[in-house]
Amino acid sequence: MKTINVGIIGFGTIGAGVVKALQSKRSYLREKSGIDVNILWICDKDIKSKRPVKVNKKILTTSIAKVIYDPKVDIVVELVGGISPAKDIVMESLRNGKSVVTANKALLSNFGRDIFALAGEVGLSVGFEASVGGGIPIIRAMKEGFIADSFDLIYGIINGTSNFILSEMVEKNISFDEALADAQAKGYAERDPYLDISGGDSAHKLSVLALLGFGIAAKSTDIYTEGISGISREDIEYARDMGYAIKLLAIAKRSGSEIELRVHPTLIPKTHLLADVNGVYNAIFVKGDMVGENLFYGQGAGALPTSSAVISDIISIAKNVDVSCCGGNKPAGQRLNIAKSAPGIKKMDEVRTRYYIKFLTPDKPGVLAKVSGVLAKYDISISSVNQKEGRIGGLVPIVMMTHESFEKDMSRALREINDMKIVNKNIVRIRVEN
Amino acid sequence: MKTINVGIIGFGTIGAGVVKALQSKRSYLREKSGIDVNILWICDKDIKSKRPVKVNKKILTTSIAKVIYDPKVDIVVELVGGISPAKDIVMESLRNGKSVVTANKALLSNFGRDIFALAGEVGLSVGFEASVGGGIPIIRAMKEGFIADSFDLIYGIINGTSNFILSEMVEKNISFDEALADAQAKGYAERDPYLDISGGDSAHKLSVLALLGFGIAAKSTDIYTEGISGISREDIEYARDMGYAIKLLAIAKRSGSEIELRVHPTLIPKTHLLADVNGVYNAIFVKGDMVGENLFYGQGAGALPTSSAVISDIISIAKNVDVSCCGGNKPAGQRLNIAKSAPGIKKMDEVRTRYYIKFLTPDKPGVLAKVSGVLAKYDISISSVNQKEGRIGGLVPIVMMTHESFEKDMSRALREINDMKIVNKNIVRIRVEN
Repeated sequence: MKTINVGIIGFGTIGAGVVKALQSKRSYLREKSGIDVNILWICDKDIKSKRPVKVNKKILTTSIAKVIYDPKVDIVVELVGGISPAKDIVMESLRNGKSVVTANKALLSNFGRDIFALAGEVGLSVGFEASVGGGIPIIRAMKEGFIADSFDLIYGIINGTSNFILSEMVEKNISFDEALADAQAKGYAERDPYLDISGGDSAHKLSVLALLGFGIAAKSTDIYTEGISGISREDIEYARDMGYAIKLLAIAKRSGSEIELRVHPTLIPKTHLLADVNGVYNAIFVKGDMVGENLFYGQGAGALPTSSAVISDIISIAKNVDVSCCGGNKPAGQRLNIAKSAPGIKKMDEVRTRYYIKFLTPDKPGVLAKVSGVLAKYDISISSVNQKEGRIGGLVPIVMMTHESFEKDMSRALREINDMKIVNKNIVRIRVEN
Repeated sequence: MKTINVGIIGFGTIGAGVVKALQSKRSYLREKSGIDVNILWICDKDIKSKRPVKVNKKILTTSIAKVIYDPKVDIVVELVGGISPAKDIVMESLRNGKSVVTANKALLSNFGRDIFALAGEVGLSVGFEASVGGGIPIIRAMKEGFIADSFDLIYGIINGTSNFILSEMVEKNISFDEALADAQAKGYAERDPYLDISGGDSAHKLSVLALLGFGIAAKSTDIYTEGISGISREDIEYARDMGYAIKLLAIAKRSGSEIELRVHPTLIPKTHLLADVNGVYNAIFVKGDMVGENLFYGQGAGALPTSSAVISDIISIAKNVDVSCCGGNKPAGQRLNIAKSAPGIKKMDEVRTRYYIKFLTPDKPGVLAKVSGVLAKYDISISSVNQKEGRIGGLVPIVMMTHESFEKDMSRALREINDMKIVNKNIVRIRVEN
């Protein structure tokens, strides 16, 4: 039996979940894995507040240094989130011979390349299964299961809060604001929901997936990011009438020699599997040149699923920690395909998609002709037009679906149409993917 | 750079796919994994026929012994299928210090326990990602990703041929025989399709999943198995009218202290994600106590996806092969949760499900009363009855949905109804799951 000593830094919801599971499942894990995971330290700036798990007080500390410089610690589990002090915890742990497990997508998104480079240098592992998709084993799948594949496309629903809100809007026919309030009441959205509903959290996770899939070290600021706050009940209804659902998708797509990286609300056909992914669930599609299309679906957040992922990393790394021979404590390095010549990121302006466009206009003759004229000027071809019954704020909604066109052309056309002041300035543009 | 020598036994469709990918992606794999995979031997009883890949003739052999007794071989890849000589290849390779990669679900279903026991004894690995779900990384997920979870439920569509046939019947409104002929013409069904359409292949795979999920060493003969040849166009249509799709499911479900293991056509609600899994695709649901429900979806067969899975096993095992130190060639053993006290398998008679029942009857008064009477006698409560318009072979179809009842009660009731000779003897019984 191999005993592995872990130091857990961050004793919040996830930290407590990990501790609880490691304690209650200690013998179960021993039997399944041959590893005895011993919690040597639990560190948090607050070690006084009640937690939903009982721990020996002697292992509680407020000192990060005590954990990361303790020679007995094999693996440091970083669950504090954010950049500081998380970055220092991770880097300094690696420098001190400890492998690291982290659930921190913001950190990996911003400093993943540095962290994995250092891990490679010192020959240690960084586990980050919990950083994307909660308990869904997507990281393991991409890193190991699809090791022989090169990827064309990775996309999915990777923010449970946004998906819950959109699902509620559909199911209960309520507004964005009502659905957000509902999500907050149920604990699915934070009091400050900005990171989730702005698409920022999805962008963090997409950059982790892009690193794995394409070797691209994209910061979230390199990713075109648009959230769901502009989606209305009417858009959902009109999309449905045309056979589409609206989901917040994160998309990494090979396009020529470059990779498109974008997060935005998207119309997808109702027959697409992702259209049936509702509530706080996440689902990620991966298309490899050998495996073809694979979908992974599960709970994208929550203490239990996330703890499951953290523990799977601890055990996987522990298996490689060599405590028996060669006098070292050096697991095999976590090699990642961060190619020196990773493909570039396509400028959003150069991306081509189909579009759903909604104009609100006073019901005057000639508006449709003028709008169509501008679109035609920018080579944007319309696949369907629908002037809707009923009015929104006294205005008539016109919904168009276009064929594929360049983002820059669409932006210019909408700017020009807007300048003509024949439609309400809040033109809705939602991208469409099949 | 670590060089790992593999011997591939079985140079058919999958074998050729693996060889082709290992050759064409050699440097890609080196860069991603740090492992140089060298094909030392390719063995087949036929080394003359043309293959879709060019190989150095010097590495071709018809001698299994040459491969498994070559001290230079680190990993033996068994791709011959079936029990003999596959079993000897696997066992003898392990005894001779070689880890094994296999795609052989029939072998694992029948001798998995022996094989993993031996692997544990000699401290070597057996990779079997390709045995279930083609390129879907379900084995890795269950073995490593969900290491902290205990499972309540594992179920899914794990035979692409059957799913293709059922999908064709729905989409084209054709009979089972026509859809089967279509599947054969497209190469999705073998000339002798028995193993696929009888549910036998699904049972093999279910027993692999049950071993991983519950530690149960169930032979496929321990699994209640019913195929799809009894499903008619009308059943599909009637099910659809009630909001259900018919899929061939493999189900492993915790039920009290026992596990239900069964493969049969199943009515599932149209809103269930599995209802949208069509064609040759596979999809597997896993419910763990920590991760909750997870779904894995992808191509369940085919040379490329299966080769992707085989190569992922080769690389994972290769990472653990220690060629640098301790003078050995001993990868860490593949520990599997084959508990000494695995739960028992529930007798099919004791299983409770809901049922779809179709009777064909001459349109005489009193039949419905008699049938309902017998069902009531066995405590089977009916949730809906529908006498369908139109006739099948001059007979009137009556479709019933029941509440949950015991399989044994349903079997007795149907036997009694059959003996009354008031309905056609081909009573259709399809189980229902939500």
